[in-house]
Amino acid sequence: MRYALALEYDGRAFCGFQSQREGCGVQDALEHALAAIAGAPVRASAAGRTDAGVHAASQVAHFDTDAVRPDAAWVRGVNASLPPAAAVLWASVVDGAFHARFAATARHYVYLLQNRAERPALLAGRVGWYHRPLDLVAMQRAADRLVGTHDFSAFRAAECQAKSPVKSLTRAHVRHDGTLIRFEFSANAFLHHMVRNLVGALVEIGSGRRDAGWIGELLDARDRSRGAATFAADGLYFCGADYDVRFGLPPTRRDVTIAT
Amino acid sequence: MRYALALEYDGRAFCGFQSQREGCGVQDALEHALAAIAGAPVRASAAGRTDAGVHAASQVAHFDTDAVRPDAAWVRGVNASLPPAAAVLWASVVDGAFHARFAATARHYVYLLQNRAERPALLAGRVGWYHRPLDLVAMQRAADRLVGTHDFSAFRAAECQAKSPVKSLTRAHVRHDGTLIRFEFSANAFLHHMVRNLVGALVEIGSGRRDAGWIGELLDARDRSRGAATFAADGLYFCGADYDVRFGLPPTRRDVTIAT
Repeated sequence: MRYALALEYDGRAFCGFQSQREGCGVQDALEHALAAIAGAPVRASAAGRTDAGVHAASQVAHFDTDAVRPDAAWVRGVNASLPPAAAVLWASVVDGAFHARFAATARHYVYLLQNRAERPALLAGRVGWYHRPLDLVAMQRAADRLVGTHDFSAFRAAECQAKSPVKSLTRAHVRHDGTLIRFEFSANAFLHHMVRNLVGALVEIGSGRRDAGWIGELLDARDRSRGAATFAADGLYFCGADYDVRFGLPPTRRDVTIAT
Repeated sequence: MRYALALEYDGRAFCGFQSQREGCGVQDALEHALAAIAGAPVRASAAGRTDAGVHAASQVAHFDTDAVRPDAAWVRGVNASLPPAAAVLWASVVDGAFHARFAATARHYVYLLQNRAERPALLAGRVGWYHRPLDLVAMQRAADRLVGTHDFSAFRAAECQAKSPVKSLTRAHVRHDGTLIRFEFSANAFLHHMVRNLVGALVEIGSGRRDAGWIGELLDARDRSRGAATFAADGLYFCGADYDVRFGLPPTRRDVTIAT
């Protein structure tokens, strides 16, 4: 039987989603907790393989098991075994054709940036930080240029394992939330470090060091070495993935808002 | 010379505001950082002596020093010495008649409660938790009964050192913020554990175990032993204090919003 589930986590407690030999991945914790309920080893796959320090408001995963348990066991039972920084939100039997990673038609990220002179303390580890004023109009103009199907090599980490650097960005939105700036990105899929590199480039533009047109030059040059620094993982939240309605899943997308 | 300042902190990193022999108080960290700039010991007083685990979006404090330094040294310089979980937001010379604690005319707290079946993970340590549905209308009706000048002995911790249990609550507001419930309380001053005990009583009412009228009975009985459990510190934020405009201070109040 195949199950789909959604889970949230505080990325600071893990070395990223993916399983590691040291057992420090979210996947390790999840598989360990699922195995405790199943009474047998369980392998889980997820929609977004988040990096170390990256949070999830709604990570979507699936696993297969022969164990027959009430649905609540895959939520409350699993949560009893998960560390405090991770919790399953729902679990539901799903068609065997479902795959958390390969069936996802869109993925959604939010990046929260504290934009003020003083470093974040109350929200340390939960938000990125930029200390000088940022021009949101210029940043949104540049973000608009990113929407569409492009070769995003300029925003791709060297270690990226994606087969193709061509992705379709359907949403790139920048807005104020108190002293925070909120970036929202949706795409069919993202390259490794893509959101953090996009935020880095947009901050270069917002700070006035580059004009809004620079983002198009970067995109066209397809050269990561010409881009801006990768922004900190702290402010990045994986906010879910979309799937065909035929799978009949509970909500697979969840927003996160923090404002001060 | 007397300085006023505002600082924010993540309460989980400290054993409360007040100085402790072990040096684990916010006050210890602040005085240590101020002394590094002043080149001499400094004593700080604050508007709200928050408990262990209680956060501050805007704690107001003052200190005296003979050291002549540019204002920025009392912010950026002090922040360089403070631990990551605390940061000064502003510092400003103030009239010698100012006192962060005794001159405060009002204090403001927000309590954030995650109201859902699954325990908080993404926001663990940042929000309280209640697992069953809550009736906000009943909670607000009970909260309305609390507004005014009352003897709040029923919501006072045994260790409370306040001279009088009579306080004037000017605001008690309950509302939804996504899956979070947000409680806002303002008063001239608060007793020890008062907000956490009020939230505990309101949750008893919201869950249907007690009706809204129970809060008046509690208040009238002035007996802490008849009240509800003290809610967790995790969801409590000190959001500032008010002072006479003649002190000409920068903003001493700051809101905090988290929603998922």
